[in-house]
Amino acid sequence: MAGQDWIAADWGTSHLRIWHMSADGTVKSRHDSDKGMGTLDSDGFEPALLAALPDLPGTITVMICGMAGSRQGWCEAPYAAVPCTPPSGSDAVRVPATDTRIDARILPGIKQDSPADVMRGEETQVAGFLALNPGFDGVICLPGTHCKWVHISAGEVVSFRTFVTGELFALLSKQSVLRHSIGTEGWDDAAFSGALDQAMGRPAAFAADLFSLRAENLLHDLSPATARARLSGLLIGMELAAAKPYWLGQSVAVLGETGLAEVYAAALEKQGLPVTRADAERMTLEGLKAAYAQIKETA
Amino acid sequence: MAGQDWIAADWGTSHLRIWHMSADGTVKSRHDSDKGMGTLDSDGFEPALLAALPDLPGTITVMICGMAGSRQGWCEAPYAAVPCTPPSGSDAVRVPATDTRIDARILPGIKQDSPADVMRGEETQVAGFLALNPGFDGVICLPGTHCKWVHISAGEVVSFRTFVTGELFALLSKQSVLRHSIGTEGWDDAAFSGALDQAMGRPAAFAADLFSLRAENLLHDLSPATARARLSGLLIGMELAAAKPYWLGQSVAVLGETGLAEVYAAALEKQGLPVTRADAERMTLEGLKAAYAQIKETA
Repeated sequence: MAGQDWIAADWGTSHLRIWHMSADGTVKSRHDSDKGMGTLDSDGFEPALLAALPDLPGTITVMICGMAGSRQGWCEAPYAAVPCTPPSGSDAVRVPATDTRIDARILPGIKQDSPADVMRGEETQVAGFLALNPGFDGVICLPGTHCKWVHISAGEVVSFRTFVTGELFALLSKQSVLRHSIGTEGWDDAAFSGALDQAMGRPAAFAADLFSLRAENLLHDLSPATARARLSGLLIGMELAAAKPYWLGQSVAVLGETGLAEVYAAALEKQGLPVTRADAERMTLEGLKAAYAQIKETA
Repeated sequence: MAGQDWIAADWGTSHLRIWHMSADGTVKSRHDSDKGMGTLDSDGFEPALLAALPDLPGTITVMICGMAGSRQGWCEAPYAAVPCTPPSGSDAVRVPATDTRIDARILPGIKQDSPADVMRGEETQVAGFLALNPGFDGVICLPGTHCKWVHISAGEVVSFRTFVTGELFALLSKQSVLRHSIGTEGWDDAAFSGALDQAMGRPAAFAADLFSLRAENLLHDLSPATARARLSGLLIGMELAAAKPYWLGQSVAVLGETGLAEVYAAALEKQGLPVTRADAERMTLEGLKAAYAQIKETA
């Protein structure tokens, strides 16, 4: 089978990203769609994938990570349990009875029994980062709607925690009483930094500090951009206070080049930590490439 | 004017409650509607009030508390600033140029410059509680969408804090990733109690503890009723941790007889505090009665 093209796919709740790969690991094309798991029932995955694929003769291998492997997805790929290495290509579940043009493999996520936690998709970013940085010991932070902190030692995921910080930001800024006071854009570095310190020092006051943003808008004309930066600072400060056992005295790698990853990196640097940055999409692709190489080795 | 009927009105964001009062303080009728401030523009208040009133000859006094007095309401009643006694009837703003059948007075809310905070409506419940308990020194807790803790000393509101705990519960249970895991009803006392202790001891972990509710549902079949009680425990535990300077070593009165007030009272009793309970609606009416009596004295 050496020398064949293959497909890498990142299939999350709200998106499907597909790379058409040549055998030497170069990307021949990249395709993005909104055909995420959330929009599909179990019969919808195969047509969505076929529609996104180039027209090719024979059977093509598709290596998939993300929510497509959940119980509500295309085909369940049961979680690996910590401590474990990130799931490899040989752990991927082959989707049964597909169209003969595709050989679809879905990578498992990782679970932790206590404190209960799960990931699907991020384990492949971790695998990609470790493929490029094989000796890395420390903590990988993956900002997003649900930010993950992953403790890596000797190539294994030892433990991890997920914080719903990004989702709280979205709910509070768009659907709570604060929506009248929070801007949809704009920023204020000093306000972010002050709120970060405030929440790290006194995280319990979160629900009262939120109302103060509204009251400061009413009483002191707090600007929407400043309120936005303060909301972000309060949320990330509370998260950093709880994640301190993860990052304190550790090497930290933040995966992501977008605005949110910059904010996390800045917050960590403010704690005196050297922070490595890496592109999250590239890590996903590197993880899928490593998984594909593993099944080709064993084929 | 002695001997005339009058109207008491609690006009909030989402409701309008009207009591037709006789001069001796008995309630002749009670009327509830959903004509809250949120559904009205500034021209809509007078017709909404007239439609809710009994058909009466002459001019009737209407004593109003709540959001009708906000800048976006019927007629702004500027905030009193702490420390202050709860606004009295003589502080009420007379709505100009109304229909001659009504003489409408709106009670001010209370503001606090730092930490910035505001209330509109709760000050009248506080006034009602103090009218019935004139020697009270301690803390009044008013559970709700936005729970207030009010420190009372020598008849004055010394300071207060608002927590958006109830709003967070609604957003998280109905609109976040947790909506799949949280029941709309059901309860589990032990789960509430455990989560309360957990959040009081480690409030910063809030955003991770939330995701654990989802993960425990996926991994360990956490029941929707237990998840609901734990979410409530996490939120109220975080609030009690921050409000500790308010309640520690104090007499605490919880205003409310509903489920939420019971939950707060139970959480406080668990901290070894004796808790007084009082009916919130009755306190509002007592506050409006006290305000009406004040303007009649000075008339």
